[in-house]
Amino acid sequence: MSELRKDPILDHWVIIAAERGQRPNDFAIEKEEQTPSGCPFCSSNEYMTPPEIMAVCSVDRKPDTPGWEVRVVPNKFPALAIEGKVRRSGIGLLNRMTGVGAHEVIIESPEHCADIATMPREHVVNIIDTFIERIVDLRSDHRLRHIVVFRNYGAAAGASLSHPHSQIIALPTVPKLVSDKLTAARNHYLHKERCIFCDLIEQEMALPERVVFQNDHFIVLSVFAARFPFEVNIFPLSHQHDIVLMNHAQKEALADILSQILLRYRDILGGPPYNLIIQTTPNTTPRPGHPEYWRTIEYDYHWHIELMPRLTKTAGFEWGTGFYINPVSPERAAAFLRQDTAEEAEAAVGS
Amino acid sequence: MSELRKDPILDHWVIIAAERGQRPNDFAIEKEEQTPSGCPFCSSNEYMTPPEIMAVCSVDRKPDTPGWEVRVVPNKFPALAIEGKVRRSGIGLLNRMTGVGAHEVIIESPEHCADIATMPREHVVNIIDTFIERIVDLRSDHRLRHIVVFRNYGAAAGASLSHPHSQIIALPTVPKLVSDKLTAARNHYLHKERCIFCDLIEQEMALPERVVFQNDHFIVLSVFAARFPFEVNIFPLSHQHDIVLMNHAQKEALADILSQILLRYRDILGGPPYNLIIQTTPNTTPRPGHPEYWRTIEYDYHWHIELMPRLTKTAGFEWGTGFYINPVSPERAAAFLRQDTAEEAEAAVGS
Repeated sequence: MSELRKDPILDHWVIIAAERGQRPNDFAIEKEEQTPSGCPFCSSNEYMTPPEIMAVCSVDRKPDTPGWEVRVVPNKFPALAIEGKVRRSGIGLLNRMTGVGAHEVIIESPEHCADIATMPREHVVNIIDTFIERIVDLRSDHRLRHIVVFRNYGAAAGASLSHPHSQIIALPTVPKLVSDKLTAARNHYLHKERCIFCDLIEQEMALPERVVFQNDHFIVLSVFAARFPFEVNIFPLSHQHDIVLMNHAQKEALADILSQILLRYRDILGGPPYNLIIQTTPNTTPRPGHPEYWRTIEYDYHWHIELMPRLTKTAGFEWGTGFYINPVSPERAAAFLRQDTAEEAEAAVGS
Repeated sequence: MSELRKDPILDHWVIIAAERGQRPNDFAIEKEEQTPSGCPFCSSNEYMTPPEIMAVCSVDRKPDTPGWEVRVVPNKFPALAIEGKVRRSGIGLLNRMTGVGAHEVIIESPEHCADIATMPREHVVNIIDTFIERIVDLRSDHRLRHIVVFRNYGAAAGASLSHPHSQIIALPTVPKLVSDKLTAARNHYLHKERCIFCDLIEQEMALPERVVFQNDHFIVLSVFAARFPFEVNIFPLSHQHDIVLMNHAQKEALADILSQILLRYRDILGGPPYNLIIQTTPNTTPRPGHPEYWRTIEYDYHWHIELMPRLTKTAGFEWGTGFYINPVSPERAAAFLRQDTAEEAEAAVGS
């Protein structure tokens, strides 16, 4: 089983997944991209993955056979294992935890060359529904404190297969970065009785230089302190602390805006590698009826999606300081992504 | 001038270096490696860099001519500019600062193919002396709050030129990651009147499974919660808060141990890309005589070098959580780097 370890100085965690068992020279070989015929995520190759956890399908079918639209399988090389007890232990300054968790793959289409940017809206809604269904299911396991859904697109963004897919990892602890976000939101709420994300969205809408576009339910913002060129965040316009609370109209609007921004990435940036992360509430919230329910993050958190093209490299400066160098101003990035005319872009950046 | 921006939720800073002025399609082209003949860092090509800031040389020479051993020049594409006032401003939730600072390149040898792993000890001492001289000089400018020296080796680690070089960036603020380290060290000191790094080194020496090797003055430790396979830290064995305090014997020992670990990286890992970062005290310490001098970090910080081969990719999971997945156990990494026999390695990992 893998192991979680905590940095004794900075308190962040790492997963030591040593049974992946690489030897020093295993890293030298760049992974070859699978040809479509040998792709384990393609329809008719269901036997190449571990048995499926669930699938979305409109026809009657047996598990692990064709006919599905979205399919969820355990990761073949999981970073964490679902069996076992979460045991915390330590020696002196050092803390560890058993690597209990879940690591699943959401295969987003039976087609190898499908693309969220151009999929029919209903198909994207199916994918979003699948994310939500898996989050809700994994949350029923109280050993799992946080569930993160993410999507790596392109080899430079860490994808080892080009077939469209996302991943889901359930962790036995809330990551420091997530709890830092929650703490910032709670502190703001305790101080002002307002959501910091709602305040930020309102401020950005008032001076719209970083607004990329919006629809009835969502807004895409070019990030003010973007670490990466063309990094954007997608926020629900109405306050909502958890992605699982979306209604159908919201899901359709999210599908639309997600396709729209990914289409812009493709057309304007030439289809860069990117990472997408869903940031929602952890699994540690007291349920209704619990005496601590009033303290829940329902009032102060606001779920969102982070989307970052990987056009620049992170090097010693970034790793050593947590500072990032971004060569594209977020206002200019927004103008490009809005497809402003040259004059409009000039005005936006000058403002 | 570039601009520093603070993330309103997570409080980290980024440098928006927009005068680098990339357009969306500028990122598509992978930078071509310079051939040695066109390398701006090679001897006789001094005219290709901005005028030098300093040089180490044993012969009489004019600036920007051959004859140097180590040469420091301003970065041709600086992320920060040395002229100007540090102006802090904000609008609502958003905070910015003018991009005042320094960005220099330390060209470590006139030879294009030189390598710290195999350089004579005195040459490596010259490089270390150059780091220290630049740090001391930049600290005399009190607008500059923190100075970081780092080395990117290999294109995958962010190096755009293969000629051996390091970089130095001076910042108008202490990065959050650095102040988090300082705070952890101070809290430990206030609680125990001991240095957390000294405690950690002592603990690691007692159960030596993660000790790679040591000499009279330095120790190389495989990091307990390593984010990257074969990540190591180099610590001075005696408590020392600032790299500039090293005596000559320490500099020689550091040169030796640095060459030794980089030689192991070359021989055992096949010369992977890596990032190296010098973590030392910021420029905010009260000087002796200052009434707050007793609160200085002299007692509680311990400078060190972080060294991380870049053999794995960071993707959505890492960016979204700050969690890392490391497929090589740090004990196994130490055994490989020590060149243990198979039996010794087995015993070390099993322990």
